[in-house]
Amino acid sequence: MAQLFNKVVVIGVGLIGGSFAKGIKTRHLANEVVGYGPTATSLQKGVALGVLDSYTLDLAQALDKADLVMLAVPMGAMQAVFTQMQPLLQPQTIVTDAGSSKMSVIHAVESVYQQLPAWFVPGHPIAGKEQSGVEAASETLFEKHKVILTPEPVTDASALARVQAVWQALGAQVSVMTAQKHDEVLAATSHLPHLLAFTLVDLLNEHSELGNVFQYTAGGFRDFSRIASSDATMWRDIALNNAPAIVKWMRNYQHAMDEVIALIESENAEGLFELFAKAKLARDTHIVNK
Amino acid sequence: MAQLFNKVVVIGVGLIGGSFAKGIKTRHLANEVVGYGPTATSLQKGVALGVLDSYTLDLAQALDKADLVMLAVPMGAMQAVFTQMQPLLQPQTIVTDAGSSKMSVIHAVESVYQQLPAWFVPGHPIAGKEQSGVEAASETLFEKHKVILTPEPVTDASALARVQAVWQALGAQVSVMTAQKHDEVLAATSHLPHLLAFTLVDLLNEHSELGNVFQYTAGGFRDFSRIASSDATMWRDIALNNAPAIVKWMRNYQHAMDEVIALIESENAEGLFELFAKAKLARDTHIVNK
Repeated sequence: MAQLFNKVVVIGVGLIGGSFAKGIKTRHLANEVVGYGPTATSLQKGVALGVLDSYTLDLAQALDKADLVMLAVPMGAMQAVFTQMQPLLQPQTIVTDAGSSKMSVIHAVESVYQQLPAWFVPGHPIAGKEQSGVEAASETLFEKHKVILTPEPVTDASALARVQAVWQALGAQVSVMTAQKHDEVLAATSHLPHLLAFTLVDLLNEHSELGNVFQYTAGGFRDFSRIASSDATMWRDIALNNAPAIVKWMRNYQHAMDEVIALIESENAEGLFELFAKAKLARDTHIVNK
Repeated sequence: MAQLFNKVVVIGVGLIGGSFAKGIKTRHLANEVVGYGPTATSLQKGVALGVLDSYTLDLAQALDKADLVMLAVPMGAMQAVFTQMQPLLQPQTIVTDAGSSKMSVIHAVESVYQQLPAWFVPGHPIAGKEQSGVEAASETLFEKHKVILTPEPVTDASALARVQAVWQALGAQVSVMTAQKHDEVLAATSHLPHLLAFTLVDLLNEHSELGNVFQYTAGGFRDFSRIASSDATMWRDIALNNAPAIVKWMRNYQHAMDEVIALIESENAEGLFELFAKAKLARDTHIVNK
């Protein structure tokens, strides 16, 4: 594939940052892929695993002559990293990120720069596993997965186009929408189900009334609850950083549960059948066959 | 393996009944396995697929000289089948079932027989797939899966022991508990997650506000929502037949959600982390490694 950048820097070489780096390296989309982070352990692993060409613990050295910086740090660290980068970033550098909520990242950048810089392209690849860390990084993680970019009016069009191009070269399908819409969509489709799974596992774990009920679960529960094995720090940060949209969708969900409870209590067989049949049809149409 | 019965009759040859029949046939646990149902289609398939030795559409013929009858019909059909069997059952026959809720089956039998007969052993194999029908039947479906038997004081001890023996011969782990405890445990571990998954898919499907949001989902959502592809008729029947326990656990769950919402709204980072970390630990301990 055509080389898109000379120097790509990945800050935060975990599952997402590592997969981004490895995908670029494997496809020769940049001349060099450099990792930066506060400690050497995962960066050394990244070099050993062929995820990175090199790494540095010196942020100025990392950012020197960088064409593209990918910030794949926890949501809770975004603002601190932008603050550290602020005096060091060079004019040619495009910065993008992989944060799971976009309004809060934009606010974090605005609080450092007063107004959003044209060279920042907020983004979010919708891919992941319950495993984390650079060991789980894969150059194919983003293939056939959606990546959402949420430029603001101030965002430079050519910066947007170049970030879009690198994601497409990694096999992703890029959608562009507002940060607000992104945060609502993700609250509904990702944050809500994660919180539902965490909540169920906790509820069953805390309820001593029935003893250890996990022994009576089968494959359905294992799959339903898989996302409750996700990283607690990451989900704490997401819950705090997309709070308004998440709370809105949790309340929507509680109201939807009220309706199901009402159908059960009124013994509305037809209504229950219709609800389940519509859900099955929607899932079979949109998820199984997508 | 040793033959446990001469003639086993399976009424309702779908996924569960078919897997029970095929498991017995494959392991030579009975001299003959006969299928009965209202129409020939799935019974013919059952014979062709090696699930059944033979079938009949004549209930009297099916029950004649039967040692064991397995009722694997939808919950909504239980009472009607017991009513049809009542004049035809012979004294030597043990009857068991595979219904997903046990109090309602016991009430259905009591309403036909005035009091629960000693030869009826209520049971529930905790195994399934989102596929249904005899085509999905597998002789290994119950291996390493729990089967819960819920005898009442009146239940004949040797009938219980023989039903327990056949499940164990199929590779299942048998637990014995009261019907009430079974219904609570299943409401919490199976019925609640199914209803949560149906409810989420319906909520996202009905909400036109954000367009088709299913396109932005990834593997986590696919696994979480897998059980929303389950059979609508079966789940209508379960919802109606275990209504009190299901409603109780749905309300418990709504209260647990209230607590999560309160943590988010009060920006309680530590509380959120603890909640997610405890859920992850509980799942990793009890589900992943079980």
